[in-house]
Amino acid sequence: MANIGEFTLHATDGKARTGVLQTAHGPVRTPIFMPVGTVGSVKGVAPDDLDAIGAEIILGNTYHLYLRPGDELVARRGGLHEFNAWRKPILTDSGGFQVFSLSDLRRITEEGVEFRSHLDGSKHMFTPEKVISIQRNLNSDIMMVLDECVPYGADKEYTARSLKMTTRWAQRCRDAYPKGTGDNLLFGITQGGFFKDLREESIGELTQIDFDGFALGGLSVGESKTEMMDILYHSAPFLPAHKPRYLMGVGTPLDIINGINAGIDMFDCVLPTRNARNGTLYTSEGKINIKRREFAEDDGPLDPNCSCYTCRTFSRAYLRHLFHAQEILSYRLNSIHNLTYFLDLVRGAREAIAQGTFAEYKSRFDAIYPQEAALCP
Amino acid sequence: MANIGEFTLHATDGKARTGVLQTAHGPVRTPIFMPVGTVGSVKGVAPDDLDAIGAEIILGNTYHLYLRPGDELVARRGGLHEFNAWRKPILTDSGGFQVFSLSDLRRITEEGVEFRSHLDGSKHMFTPEKVISIQRNLNSDIMMVLDECVPYGADKEYTARSLKMTTRWAQRCRDAYPKGTGDNLLFGITQGGFFKDLREESIGELTQIDFDGFALGGLSVGESKTEMMDILYHSAPFLPAHKPRYLMGVGTPLDIINGINAGIDMFDCVLPTRNARNGTLYTSEGKINIKRREFAEDDGPLDPNCSCYTCRTFSRAYLRHLFHAQEILSYRLNSIHNLTYFLDLVRGAREAIAQGTFAEYKSRFDAIYPQEAALCP
Repeated sequence: MANIGEFTLHATDGKARTGVLQTAHGPVRTPIFMPVGTVGSVKGVAPDDLDAIGAEIILGNTYHLYLRPGDELVARRGGLHEFNAWRKPILTDSGGFQVFSLSDLRRITEEGVEFRSHLDGSKHMFTPEKVISIQRNLNSDIMMVLDECVPYGADKEYTARSLKMTTRWAQRCRDAYPKGTGDNLLFGITQGGFFKDLREESIGELTQIDFDGFALGGLSVGESKTEMMDILYHSAPFLPAHKPRYLMGVGTPLDIINGINAGIDMFDCVLPTRNARNGTLYTSEGKINIKRREFAEDDGPLDPNCSCYTCRTFSRAYLRHLFHAQEILSYRLNSIHNLTYFLDLVRGAREAIAQGTFAEYKSRFDAIYPQEAALCP
Repeated sequence: MANIGEFTLHATDGKARTGVLQTAHGPVRTPIFMPVGTVGSVKGVAPDDLDAIGAEIILGNTYHLYLRPGDELVARRGGLHEFNAWRKPILTDSGGFQVFSLSDLRRITEEGVEFRSHLDGSKHMFTPEKVISIQRNLNSDIMMVLDECVPYGADKEYTARSLKMTTRWAQRCRDAYPKGTGDNLLFGITQGGFFKDLREESIGELTQIDFDGFALGGLSVGESKTEMMDILYHSAPFLPAHKPRYLMGVGTPLDIINGINAGIDMFDCVLPTRNARNGTLYTSEGKINIKRREFAEDDGPLDPNCSCYTCRTFSRAYLRHLFHAQEILSYRLNSIHNLTYFLDLVRGAREAIAQGTFAEYKSRFDAIYPQEAALCP
């Protein structure tokens, strides 16, 4: 078996790459999409579903799991894999993003970030050392450093000051968990907002620290598609080629295709599961909303080109009915389909890169989402 | 293959019986419990789950399916089995009970019952002929006649008048669908409230009509356990021995055991799925509420004697966490377990009856639910 943390590139096609990252719970083939399992379950979808869908790694949210059921309780259960019965790799975020987006009364100091729980208002503090301790308790295969996700619209001075602190926090995370201490990998997160020179600066600083992979943070935070693509395509090449590159919280199918095109290896997003619960479903011909009247008597499968349980078993008419009746089953069936779509998308990308046909593969998605494609390089 | 509607008794043990009822979508082994799939899905549980659980027949609610998506739409889809992808037997109620319990402004006349939809307030009329037409559109394997479910506390005069109308409605249902017309079986429903002589009268009248099976209706409507058992044990022996006997809307595990003990063959109830959504779970040692603090660090399975997916895969600690976090997955996993419990219960009863050990089997449940058992014969 390969060494944990080893990242092997098997093929490149332009800037796009395909390879394998070894983790303590097995290999992850890249490019990969990670379904989001916020509180220790991918909403509506059980581990057997995830296996059937072809998921290779899921994401857990440190902020949520720390608050409920608590990372120490999870540690006493043997870690998150034992707790939620998902025995393949798990990546956990550092909790920073959720603190900034969900909690009340956060206060950022050099020490860390103080916040109140969105559940009960109780006061907590995340420091770089604390989030490492939490993620070690969860025993995630890939831990993320604490960072400040700079809000969209922040000025250059704020962004520059913030990225320096993010670098210091990253170093404190690494110091709290020196390389070789355990089987948990640790990724750095680069920031820099929407300033290309600051992006370069952040990457330059972070990559001085010996992390197992590097993320682009602070994208998909409210900016236009054009701005996001501008920063993505500019920044990705500065990330080390021999380490996995992770675009956090992104995104639409076309965002992922562009991320892969720019040389990114890993993605996560709540979009497939959240949209599933809103009735927005991805098909090989584009997005549809299953709510619409036109599907009331449509006996065809959701997507004739999809082989998921939902598409193999049910008609659009039935899925529309379940959605309108607000049946719990609707959320599960829709989530199974949307996650399959995202996992098929990255599997197709891996195959296309291996065959040197990624440009053609990308053009198919550009054709499905022409309005979005017009805003991308 | 046996004739549709054929009911073969394989063994009896006291009054308890085990046999097989042939339907257009295959055999149903009795005694059987039917999971309730109100609007065309058993809440949170897909057909593949139902197969794994060992469900042999499910129940659909005529009232709900008539209102949404509409029985004619379902007919155009090829019937309910094609629509919801459950290819095994389906029983549909007549809609009467839901009209009485859910709809507004109902008005009962000799013609039928007029009501307003609980969804949009629209006005509708169910007649005996109409509910046959709806159930034929749904293409259910077992259709039920329209009846008036007399409210608990109705006096003898009202109950006596009502059961006469229920008999006339039953005859109109049979006339609207003469025996031999199609593959859909038709069951009669006996009423009579909590008056033994009226129960006998209703059964006497209904069994003059050539139905494929007979139900005891109007129980589990608010009466005490003692009253229910009194009527159940008194009435069941009057139902024809060579036809399946169905106790509608019942009940707890001990109610079902007593029903079987009294000679009943079929049961349905929302209890396992509704309780699953409330966190009340049935185990081989009795009911537990998974919400409770004592399960927070309990690494054991929900029920060590259960082989369902939930018990094979997850700990009580995880199930408690999912319930507290209000994750959709909680409802599915809990429903899978509770339905397995009810289906294991009737499977065990079938085996015990075949082996002549039903009294011993029953005593096990009396011991698990001693307070309830004290109220039963």
